[in-house]
Amino acid sequence: MRAIDTLLHPRSIAVIGASADASKTAGRPVAYLQKHGYAGTIYPVNPRADQVGGLTCYPDIDSLPGVPDVGLVLVAPDRAIDAVAALSRRGTPAAIVLASGFGETGESGARRQQALKEAAGGMRLLGPNTIGLVNLTDRIMLCASGALEMESLQGGGIAVVSQSGGILGSLLSRAAAAGLGFSKLVSTGNEVDLEAADFVDHLADDAATQVIALYMEGLRNPEKFRRAALKAARAGKPVVVYKVGRSESGARSAASHTGALAGEDRVYDALFNQVGAIRAQTFADLLDIPAALATRRRLRGKRIAILTSTGGAGTLVADSLGVAGFDTPPPGPETAARLRDLQKNDQIVLDRNPIDVTLAGLQPELLRNTIATLLDSTDYDAVITVVGSSALAQPTLAAGAIAASLGQSDKPVLAYVSPHAPTVLANVNRAGAPAFTAPESFAAVLSAMLARTARETATADDAGTDAAAGGAQPAAAPADLPAGSLNEAQARALFARYGIPSVGERTVSDAAQGRREATTFDRPVVLKVLSSRITHKTEAGGVAVGVAPAAIGEAIEAMAARVRERTGIEPEGYLLQEMASGVEMIVGVHRDPQLGPTLLVGLGGVTAELFQDTALRLLPVDRATVRDMLRSLKAWPLLDGYRGRPKADVKALEDAVLNFASMAVQLGERLVEAEINPLFVQEEGRGVRAADGVAILK
Amino acid sequence: MRAIDTLLHPRSIAVIGASADASKTAGRPVAYLQKHGYAGTIYPVNPRADQVGGLTCYPDIDSLPGVPDVGLVLVAPDRAIDAVAALSRRGTPAAIVLASGFGETGESGARRQQALKEAAGGMRLLGPNTIGLVNLTDRIMLCASGALEMESLQGGGIAVVSQSGGILGSLLSRAAAAGLGFSKLVSTGNEVDLEAADFVDHLADDAATQVIALYMEGLRNPEKFRRAALKAARAGKPVVVYKVGRSESGARSAASHTGALAGEDRVYDALFNQVGAIRAQTFADLLDIPAALATRRRLRGKRIAILTSTGGAGTLVADSLGVAGFDTPPPGPETAARLRDLQKNDQIVLDRNPIDVTLAGLQPELLRNTIATLLDSTDYDAVITVVGSSALAQPTLAAGAIAASLGQSDKPVLAYVSPHAPTVLANVNRAGAPAFTAPESFAAVLSAMLARTARETATADDAGTDAAAGGAQPAAAPADLPAGSLNEAQARALFARYGIPSVGERTVSDAAQGRREATTFDRPVVLKVLSSRITHKTEAGGVAVGVAPAAIGEAIEAMAARVRERTGIEPEGYLLQEMASGVEMIVGVHRDPQLGPTLLVGLGGVTAELFQDTALRLLPVDRATVRDMLRSLKAWPLLDGYRGRPKADVKALEDAVLNFASMAVQLGERLVEAEINPLFVQEEGRGVRAADGVAILK
Repeated sequence: MRAIDTLLHPRSIAVIGASADASKTAGRPVAYLQKHGYAGTIYPVNPRADQVGGLTCYPDIDSLPGVPDVGLVLVAPDRAIDAVAALSRRGTPAAIVLASGFGETGESGARRQQALKEAAGGMRLLGPNTIGLVNLTDRIMLCASGALEMESLQGGGIAVVSQSGGILGSLLSRAAAAGLGFSKLVSTGNEVDLEAADFVDHLADDAATQVIALYMEGLRNPEKFRRAALKAARAGKPVVVYKVGRSESGARSAASHTGALAGEDRVYDALFNQVGAIRAQTFADLLDIPAALATRRRLRGKRIAILTSTGGAGTLVADSLGVAGFDTPPPGPETAARLRDLQKNDQIVLDRNPIDVTLAGLQPELLRNTIATLLDSTDYDAVITVVGSSALAQPTLAAGAIAASLGQSDKPVLAYVSPHAPTVLANVNRAGAPAFTAPESFAAVLSAMLARTARETATADDAGTDAAAGGAQPAAAPADLPAGSLNEAQARALFARYGIPSVGERTVSDAAQGRREATTFDRPVVLKVLSSRITHKTEAGGVAVGVAPAAIGEAIEAMAARVRERTGIEPEGYLLQEMASGVEMIVGVHRDPQLGPTLLVGLGGVTAELFQDTALRLLPVDRATVRDMLRSLKAWPLLDGYRGRPKADVKALEDAVLNFASMAVQLGERLVEAEINPLFVQEEGRGVRAADGVAILK
Repeated sequence: MRAIDTLLHPRSIAVIGASADASKTAGRPVAYLQKHGYAGTIYPVNPRADQVGGLTCYPDIDSLPGVPDVGLVLVAPDRAIDAVAALSRRGTPAAIVLASGFGETGESGARRQQALKEAAGGMRLLGPNTIGLVNLTDRIMLCASGALEMESLQGGGIAVVSQSGGILGSLLSRAAAAGLGFSKLVSTGNEVDLEAADFVDHLADDAATQVIALYMEGLRNPEKFRRAALKAARAGKPVVVYKVGRSESGARSAASHTGALAGEDRVYDALFNQVGAIRAQTFADLLDIPAALATRRRLRGKRIAILTSTGGAGTLVADSLGVAGFDTPPPGPETAARLRDLQKNDQIVLDRNPIDVTLAGLQPELLRNTIATLLDSTDYDAVITVVGSSALAQPTLAAGAIAASLGQSDKPVLAYVSPHAPTVLANVNRAGAPAFTAPESFAAVLSAMLARTARETATADDAGTDAAAGGAQPAAAPADLPAGSLNEAQARALFARYGIPSVGERTVSDAAQGRREATTFDRPVVLKVLSSRITHKTEAGGVAVGVAPAAIGEAIEAMAARVRERTGIEPEGYLLQEMASGVEMIVGVHRDPQLGPTLLVGLGGVTAELFQDTALRLLPVDRATVRDMLRSLKAWPLLDGYRGRPKADVKALEDAVLNFASMAVQLGERLVEAEINPLFVQEEGRGVRAADGVAILK
């Protein structure tokens, strides 16, 4: 997008409301532009100043000698609207509005925001309520964050897009202290015009950007985000997202229908999964994971060497990795022999990992050779070096040794800094090896690296763009469906049109008819009393399972007697239902108010509600996605022949889920929600049977 | 323990192997003792030096002019044994051995460790393979950690007991940088004599200690730890434990019998739960939680005020708290009115929390009054102040305002530091308000504070010391039990002696006998074929559920025909089993190799294995503990009348679990393991029925 290119590379900038006092917030932007070496033209605009930062100050926008590429608007909300209108009149392509007091403050603010949007006309806007943006690749700071006071702001491969200005400042100062560098940082604020997805889209093409860190509070335009994230994925630039709003779904988790089981935040998880974005689980992950991915080193397996000169710290890292499913195997004989040669010490114990080579912690060449040996070894996919307290006296030792080893392999090299040693941490990061102070960081970071390798290795194209490939189904959505809640029979009939079979059943009025219908069944049935007056059939003696066809008549007679005796009620009839066996699943579709139609698959019945063992994806889905959903369930082994049980008909289940998804896509907006629960998945080759269902249409 | 008192408060210290070169590890301890102001007598011992740190150096231990209270042994492993022997001969009460190369390095090291122990005789030993101990209350450093190079080591209420010396150094330097102070720090190393539990026991009596942070790799003596932790709990000094070894259990989680379901690490969880210790989930928690508990401020509820001048950071904290079940309600009308008065700003938006009072972030008095108002408010149980980038220019502002507000209330006051601002962080911590840089810290810390309040409020005495209070049971363990695996019938008979009823069942040989026995049953039964040759009864047509008593004869005839037809096998007989209904539970006991007999309760059947919805405690247990176990299950609602279902007989389940636990206690070492799965918990008032069981005796 051209406007974003202009915002990131303006040849001239008008700073509206620039203060000559650099200690004030309105004095910061001109000072920061100058301090960090902006080479273009700066036009300070302020009727009460002659000069700002040694530059001529103009009384208003109309008196500017040229049309600025970007207007940076620092004035209060009401005056910001006038400034934006004036900039737009002059033909300025884009403006940034820092003031708060717009949409985020209630109704009057929302009206003010609408006025701002109208004032902009064809001019593009960033903000309002933003702290601005920073282009560290080209050292252009259109930003008022106090974090820019720092002297050494490092360039690097991580881009930040943040819906909060404070978070931008936090990430910038934390990264600078840790020795991590950025390409671009953008705070999008209220997003009256340009939004986070626009910048993700732009950064996917930015040569200086290797990975995009995204702080998200919510999406205004999910489809735009989806396209931008997929574009970034195709460009090999992972998007790492920290999204707030998780706790709202926590509060709703007690509810029990499909939608609530899904939970709004879980729908975001589904979206991130489907566009290949990585969700940061902690705020620290939002820097840690990008720092690791920006190295572009490749993790090809789960075997991690931990090199340590201090026992406890290595154990912390190994234990955290183990919890996350990584292996820390001891060195094989060949690697051990090479390590022993390096140490020139027969006493050294090399049957374990963390690999404790005490002396290497103090001798640069030995440390370098040890890292090199481990990188060379076919025993390991990555190397973590633990820096202990004894290295404090030599704060460049680890960084030097690590830097020297990086060229020989593209395996990940990382470091754990055990004591408080900020200089060591920054040195190692600057050397190109991500360094962390939390043992938990490694599991998060290595998991993300592994996922990236898997994604890049897979031949799969964009997720979620293939059409569903189900079985028999109508060419068009049925036109004869009533609006409102369908009853169970209607719902199952609808599902049947999409190739999802139901359990067979017959309604009979008495034992005699039961005997005649018995021939329909070749296996035991469930016999249920029919009565609008009996709500607890089981207690009334009105349910019998496993009734052999030959015994149906007798069973009906016995049931009639029992029900009469227990309740005094005369049965209206009896339901003979095929006794489906197999794994009970739930399949549902609901419409997330923000992100659209969502498919849920999980273990059915009461268990599903309590354990929430469900997988969620946005529609449409393809077979690979459905497979992935099923395999992600804790209950997956039940389908896969658990403990000697027969395998379930997974192929038929996949077909049914795909058909159900096709139905939802075809019905489109008409379908409010639909659910099959339980869907019995029978033994391999025997298909599935819907035993209950609901559907709400409009 | 007297020896520990001497170790922490020696009047004289012999430093064996002291080096005159303070840059060497062996030069550090004398330098650190002097640097941090040790007032007692130091005897350097080194045949190759005349003076160390300006003190007379002695050639050997025998030539010391007096008997040192403590010997700090810095020499290599083999010479350490001689030094320990010499110290013991002189009558030194306690020695610390720093050298590694003992039990941790294999067989020859283990022999060396045994020799060391023998050389000590009656003298108590700390180590070997320890970095020593630090008494910050009295500024006595018997320690070689490079972390003691730091100039400002602060005293405080947190004690550290660590089985790793490196971790001690890491915690010491991290805490010093964060402005947190310690009372005592001890590294116990290989624990050839004194172990972590001894120091926990001692610190429970230490006036300067408010909370004990424990880094644990494993327990040598669980019972001693149990007593020490309970003593600390009684003294109001919480023990916070970070224990490694979690991933070993992860690797075993695929296994399926009771022991494996339990998993060794989960047994530690049970132990910690039962002694009131708090488990740190991340390494950062091991400092964060003690920092909060050491303030001794009381959290009485879950309503947290977040005061912020920067939107995004407040949202991070609120979202993390919400995920952990805390509330961040907006201010009530009265509080809002008081805040509005303070701000002298009608425009301020006070319908939300985080409470955004922009100006308060910059004005000390306003910030102080705002914190005071929130602490005063009955709307909130704690206040978190968010420090944003704008506070960087005034690094003492937040600390000053927070410190001024602490006296008026004992509610917790905490701070989140959003930018990289180590000075602000340390200032706030020193002011007495725990300050964190990770938004996730607050959930961990406030949960721990809430748990402590609950524990102190509860009238409960020590957990796990009450005898089980079950129903009818033998006065002594039955003497007539065979060794080995009991068969199902024997196992259920054993359980029945302890008052745990089984489902009723009859074995019949044919349809005729089935018809006669039918009168025994008043409800439908499960009919199973008996055959040693048929392993898959269901597939052979050999299982029928819900068979009405009147239909038993006919069902047996049908089954006989079906089984013959499908398998060609002649049935040996038939089992008529009462059809238990209700919630299927698992109850088991196994013996953890390290921690002893362990009780497991959970949801039964295949589900239990896949979802691992089980609770674990060490025996013995009381009824309150069993209740707590049941209520901790995700499946608890199934027992409690979920979605209109009848409530299950929880009282009978509690009785059964207590009886099962009593059985395990009574059988003692004879019981290898025992399990009931499933135990049917029927409707309220109808009791429980064991439907299957195993027991292994020796």
